[in-house]
Amino acid sequence: MTMQNLTALPYVAWVEPQDEHRIVLSTRLRLARNLSGRNFPHRLNDAEAEEICGKLAAALPQDGEFAGEDWQILRLDELLEREQGVLLEKHLLSRDILQHTQGRALAVNAAQTLALMFNEEDHLRMQAILPGLQPEAAWQRLSALDDRLSERLDFAFDDKLGFLTACPTNLGTGLRASVMLHLPALQITGRLEGIFAQLPQAGMTVRGVYGEGSQSEGNLFQISNRLTLGLTEEEIISRLRRLTEQLVAQEVQAEEWLRANRLLWLQDKIGRACGILSSAYLLSSAEAMQQISLVRLGLAMGLCDKIDWRELNLLMLAVQTPFLLTDSRENLSAAERDAARAKLCRQKMCGSAQADIL
Amino acid sequence: MTMQNLTALPYVAWVEPQDEHRIVLSTRLRLARNLSGRNFPHRLNDAEAEEICGKLAAALPQDGEFAGEDWQILRLDELLEREQGVLLEKHLLSRDILQHTQGRALAVNAAQTLALMFNEEDHLRMQAILPGLQPEAAWQRLSALDDRLSERLDFAFDDKLGFLTACPTNLGTGLRASVMLHLPALQITGRLEGIFAQLPQAGMTVRGVYGEGSQSEGNLFQISNRLTLGLTEEEIISRLRRLTEQLVAQEVQAEEWLRANRLLWLQDKIGRACGILSSAYLLSSAEAMQQISLVRLGLAMGLCDKIDWRELNLLMLAVQTPFLLTDSRENLSAAERDAARAKLCRQKMCGSAQADIL
Repeated sequence: MTMQNLTALPYVAWVEPQDEHRIVLSTRLRLARNLSGRNFPHRLNDAEAEEICGKLAAALPQDGEFAGEDWQILRLDELLEREQGVLLEKHLLSRDILQHTQGRALAVNAAQTLALMFNEEDHLRMQAILPGLQPEAAWQRLSALDDRLSERLDFAFDDKLGFLTACPTNLGTGLRASVMLHLPALQITGRLEGIFAQLPQAGMTVRGVYGEGSQSEGNLFQISNRLTLGLTEEEIISRLRRLTEQLVAQEVQAEEWLRANRLLWLQDKIGRACGILSSAYLLSSAEAMQQISLVRLGLAMGLCDKIDWRELNLLMLAVQTPFLLTDSRENLSAAERDAARAKLCRQKMCGSAQADIL
Repeated sequence: MTMQNLTALPYVAWVEPQDEHRIVLSTRLRLARNLSGRNFPHRLNDAEAEEICGKLAAALPQDGEFAGEDWQILRLDELLEREQGVLLEKHLLSRDILQHTQGRALAVNAAQTLALMFNEEDHLRMQAILPGLQPEAAWQRLSALDDRLSERLDFAFDDKLGFLTACPTNLGTGLRASVMLHLPALQITGRLEGIFAQLPQAGMTVRGVYGEGSQSEGNLFQISNRLTLGLTEEEIISRLRRLTEQLVAQEVQAEEWLRANRLLWLQDKIGRACGILSSAYLLSSAEAMQQISLVRLGLAMGLCDKIDWRELNLLMLAVQTPFLLTDSRENLSAAERDAARAKLCRQKMCGSAQADIL
């Protein structure tokens, strides 16, 4: 893996097309760990933080199950803003860690399925991302990584509280398990709000994947557990699976309702989305995501054949602003971004040959 | 010419593509005449009206310049509603004559360039329609037809008032001369209202071609003279030419302003219009006309190559509701019409092969 692949190309583990991933794009698990006897990151000076980064990097496993991971370690203070943006879009970085980049680093394996942030809120935040609904497999990976790191590092642990974390919401298992879902049919049929209102009772929380705050763009939502304490890792994971399977079933039901009751209306929506992506010359990020979401629903329901899953998944990433920027186009105006985004969509939807007349 | 061609197929003289017709679609001249010593049509009973229809039909010239016109005479009370609608869209009939169809008829030549209404407001309303800006040629045709009819019929004429008509606004020459203009660039740049406000001073009046009242759909406008009295036919015609040439120059200027100042924005508008016509499954008449108008501007400015002039002209007619109806589809619901209209647009824009996935 080159630095270019990691910080510029719109690739993530979940772009690979698999039919069962059409609603659940990816599963992401993360563990929070801290070195015992050291201050939490917000109380470290830059030199101490650097030292901890070095210690953590040296502990990365390279053999056994982890042979060939080809870890790449990025110092966050050396990254360009757009490279940071790309890593955010890939969910390899959090926004929080970018508040103060000195003494902060990111380690990623070649497949971009394992990512470790050094000195975010905790000394170590390690995550596994896998395509589709795979919380057990992700947990197996993450747990194995945790075990190997524990052999070389002394993690702060309390018999009563479990793993100690900077923020009490992460105490206990330190495990946050989440899925990224595409729920356009539930959104269109107006059922989403009612369903989401019940999530807190199930110990789950929801937020939009793109867009400000919890606002969703492209009908993408991230569901994750609220509690890390008082449950075992296995319970957290099985709850996530159960709830996700329920949401998938409801989305499929909503698709079938649309097929039975609003087919022509839906075909029109999806057709127009294809048409606009194929031929617009200016596309805002919000509109691009909205149209891509409809095309995605079209693929899922067999109502569109203008693009395949893998290309559409890549496009969904690639229209995000950081991917549109390059060395020679660092400072695009809003209109220039919209033009670059539209050109990309035309090329992906039509093939480059017929994309431009001028 | 078959009846089918005349009352069902979306063909008019101005569909033939000629570059200079891109702004002026057609020129239409009409003369009003009445037989002397007879009541005007609104005071005739049906039997008297029938008799006059017979008299007029028998007088149609078939030789000399008019050999091969292959006149077809339609009794309006024998036409289906959708056939009447088609003839309205082709501007071969007026709405007024459909108020009372007994004893009313229409004579049309094979080229659909000459149309004579019997017993509309006057006994005879005869018109010539030619593509592009051709008021002189249209006048030559119409004047020759008038001469030939005068040889066989005694038209009511007064030395002071000229030709007598049922409504005083048609007195004198009885000549109404009009052009159909497509003015999208003036509309988009917001200059149209100011220009139209000056038309009455020039003795001209404007109305939309499609849509209710003077509301325009598809940026199509009809400009015609207000006065028929006090001017010679040649003056009416030369005024119409002068004014039309000014409007064309202003439209071209507006196109160039858009090209210089809003190119990307315009490409986006035109691209989306192509995209929507190519892929929507529901299109209202108003939206279809709006998108077709943008594609038409795209053709005019070399910003679109997805369809040619002739096909687009035909499409502009064919999306009008009466053309969507057939024997087997007489009573389409609004949604069914929108679906049929969208299907037609997809076929024209994409070729039938890729138009439908289902």
